[in-house]
Amino acid sequence: MLYCVQMDVRVPHDVDPAHFDRLKAEEKARAQDLQRAGKWVHLWRVAGRYANVSVLDVADHDELHAILSSLPLFPFMEITVTPLARHPSAIG
Amino acid sequence: MLYCVQMDVRVPHDVDPAHFDRLKAEEKARAQDLQRAGKWVHLWRVAGRYANVSVLDVADHDELHAILSSLPLFPFMEITVTPLARHPSAIG
Amino acid sequence: MLYCVQMDVRVPHDVDPAHFDRLKAEEKARAQDLQRAGKWVHLWRVAGRYANVSVLDVADHDELHAILSSLPLFPFMEITVTPLARHPSAIG
Amino acid sequence: MLYCVQMDVRVPHDVDPAHFDRLKAEEKARAQDLQRAGKWVHLWRVAGRYANVSVLDVADHDELHAILSSLPLFPFMEITVTPLARHPSAIG
Amino acid sequence: MLYCVQMDVRVPHDVDPAHFDRLKAEEKARAQDLQRAGKWVHLWRVAGRYANVSVLDVADHDELHAILSSLPLFPFMEITVTPLARHPSAIG
Amino acid sequence: MLYCVQMDVRVPHDVDPAHFDRLKAEEKARAQDLQRAGKWVHLWRVAGRYANVSVLDVADHDELHAILSSLPLFPFMEITVTPLARHPSAIG
Amino acid sequence: MLYCVQMDVRVPHDVDPAHFDRLKAEEKARAQDLQRAGKWVHLWRVAGRYANVSVLDVADHDELHAILSSLPLFPFMEITVTPLARHPSAIG
Amino acid sequence: MLYCVQMDVRVPHDVDPAHFDRLKAEEKARAQDLQRAGKWVHLWRVAGRYANVSVLDVADHDELHAILSSLPLFPFMEITVTPLARHPSAIG
Amino acid sequence: MLYCVQMDVRVPHDVDPAHFDRLKAEEKARAQDLQRAGKWVHLWRVAGRYANVSVLDVADHDELHAILSSLPLFPFMEITVTPLARHPSAIG
Amino acid sequence: MLYCVQMDVRVPHDVDPAHFDRLKAEEKARAQDLQRAGKWVHLWRVAGRYANVSVLDVADHDELHAILSSLPLFPFMEITVTPLARHPSAIG
Repeated sequence: MLYCVQMDVRVPHDVDPAHFDRLKAEEKARAQDLQRAGKWVHLWRVAGRYANVSVLDVADHDELHAILSSLPLFPFMEITVTPLARHPSAIG
Repeated sequence: MLYCVQMDVRVPHDVDPAHFDRLKAEEKARAQDLQRAGKWVHLWRVAGRYANVSVLDVADHDELHAILSSLPLFPFMEITVTPLARHPSAIG
Repeated sequence: MLYCVQMDVRVPHDVDPAHFDRLKAEEKARAQDLQRAGKWVHLWRVAGRYANVSVLDVADHDELHAILSSLPLFPFMEITVTPLARHPSAIG
Repeated sequence: MLYCVQMDVRVPHDVDPAHFDRLKAEEKARAQDLQRAGKWVHLWRVAGRYANVSVLDVADHDELHAILSSLPLFPFMEITVTPLARHPSAIG
Repeated sequence: MLYCVQMDVRVPHDVDPAHFDRLKAEEKARAQDLQRAGKWVHLWRVAGRYANVSVLDVADHDELHAILSSLPLFPFMEITVTPLARHPSAIG
Repeated sequence: MLYCVQMDVRVPHDVDPAHFDRLKAEEKARAQDLQRAGKWVHLWRVAGRYANVSVLDVADHDELHAILSSLPLFPFMEITVTPLARHPSAIG
Repeated sequence: MLYCVQMDVRVPHDVDPAHFDRLKAEEKARAQDLQRAGKWVHLWRVAGRYANVSVLDVADHDELHAILSSLPLFPFMEITVTPLARHPSAIG
Repeated sequence: MLYCVQMDVRVPHDVDPAHFDRLKAEEKARAQDLQRAGKWVHLWRVAGRYANVSVLDVADHDELHAILSSLPLFPFMEITVTPLARHPSAIG
Repeated sequence: MLYCVQMDVRVPHDVDPAHFDRLKAEEKARAQDLQRAGKWVHLWRVAGRYANVSVLDVADHDELHAILSSLPLFPFMEITVTPLARHPSAIG
Repeated sequence: MLYCVQMDVRVPHDVDPAHFDRLKAEEKARAQDLQRAGKWVHLWRVAGRYANVSVLDVADHDELHAILSSLPLFPFMEITVTPLARHPSAIG
């Protein structure tokens, strides 16, 4: 099942930079694993903001939550989730 | 270039149903043409609402506007446009 | 899968009352069918407003959309959908 | 009487992790006690966010406030309360 | 139990004035009956707007909804309900 | 003259607890003095939130501001003020 | 006592123009009477919008409401009222 | 003096199309006159919406209001005005 | 030219009180200088909040920005600016 | 391609002033380089706020994001991006 997920990252100005860089590297590795696994099917940068628009393809709400809540940057993200259904005008 | 576009359709309760059905049929045909042409690359229904999340791949802002503003249901849509850049963690 | 759905009904002041009453009767019948079928598992009135908070248990986003978009009062509703996952502190 | 309660937890990035983990463990124990007591009748996770949708069944507004304001994570929560009445289309 | 209720009245510009005046007279009579019955314990005008701030004292959510939804002007009102608990600093 | 005042208290997570407890005790004493003086005529807790709905009866805007801005918790409050006029349907 | 009042006028597109012009002329006459009477002490146009920022000087909330609610364009206005107190840094 | 002005056009679905087309033609002529006169110095379409972002260069607030409020489509526009000052980092 | 300016002061709870008091004293002196100079023509307190509604009379946007951005409390203020034009119904 | 970009700078009150001044100097130098390169074609100050309205002319969304996200003050900015298309009434 598909979900459109927008993630906005808020970086507190007094966070430890080395710690945050480590989290970012872990986030990148995790995001790429999930893409290779076919779970995170689209990942785009919102131009001009520290945010992304993503589409995830997972079994159900529980798997979606398990994935999102275990992202290394999850504590710094504001997340909105939109469940996507098949559109009657979509082809292919 | 990619744009994430969310379209919410507002149907006035006193619109002429036959007229609106004609517009919907034209909208569907146009959306499918644009998908076949590779311009409208994703089209999903927002579950539970008369709305869609779409991704368009067009040459520039002018082409995006030309396409959206000529949709048969454009006068009934509330549209938000998000320009999408390449994400550094995206693979493939 | 569970979805929390809030439905706010907006009745245009110039709608035909007989027509709207018919829709309301159909809506009630449909809501009760869906409850008996185990799809619409909770249905509460928001005290003081023409709105409800509901929980639906359906197979996937497509079934959710099919049910909601075919409700007789759908054209008059403002709907928000929240996908519900299992909570780690929930018992039973 | 039933209340729909949405609780969003905001964790300050500079909170002491050990202290917060203790609060979370206490919150879980308290939530399960209240479920066993029949006060906290539904508890769902909002998929993708550190938030829940709950239904509480308590004697009155005072008991609702006593329960919510004594939750260990109450100081970190943004809470919205919706009083739920019986819906005329609800069965059973 | 006490509820703070704010009611904002929206009058469509093309409503039939005689019909609306009749509803207003009925609303006034009903509001005064409910005040005499001790259900509608406070009723204030929001200065400068066609709106009121009220406090109702009723048995439960169901009675609150029954009262509000049967007000003659209910179809024209935007209503917000706030359940009121006893304040620890309140005297008397 | 009557004013409806809603006060939401925001407690920073890193405030000194002893200091804040002192402020809360002072706030309570001050609120009770003002109730006894007939200035703070209603004080209700918003169920589920660290907030209150109040009605104050003071001579004018200046007295209202003098009272609110000298509350011990004023620096931690988000306040909305609604001037209340006599309602034409109010009895007694 | 002083109140800052912002009035935004919404003109329905299908209002009768002659009727609305009459209301506008009456509104102007009424606004000028109130200025001459020293009640409506400031009246400015919000540049670029059919709206004004005003300051009224009246006896109390009741007089404010009586004046605003009897303006000929009141049914078409969205109004916000801000009670103004003396500022400690104001001179003269 | 410079003002950034965003204009969103709302077309009621039941407006007379011929009448609206006339207004649009007049609007275009007027916009071009104001551009030639050096008053309307920038005029861009917001991609995907019936809206524009403009910069006007006029003598003062009164001239700005006179221009905007006399636009043929003014009754159908939602307008926001931002006064622009010289930026200390701007060159040339 | 006239501008309506609303300034809301946000005081961080962990600001150094002596430092903030110094800024407040400087702000008061500066506000009074500007009033004497005829630039800050109205200054009112928003009753119940640490905020003011002001009217400034300055040569242009640049002077407005120079004045506001050099206020000692500017870093702690949330500011909204409304350009004011002459109202056709204003007298005198 | 043109983008309208509004940047609001939020300065945390406990940021190191010397560090922030260095970032501001770097930001100014970078903004001027980008103006000289013809990428940042307009840069205006929003009167009364620490914010700007800008127009950038870049190859595509990727270049826009590369420029904005590498601004020295990017971590302190709230940014909104509006893609600008050619307006049919624009001349020249």
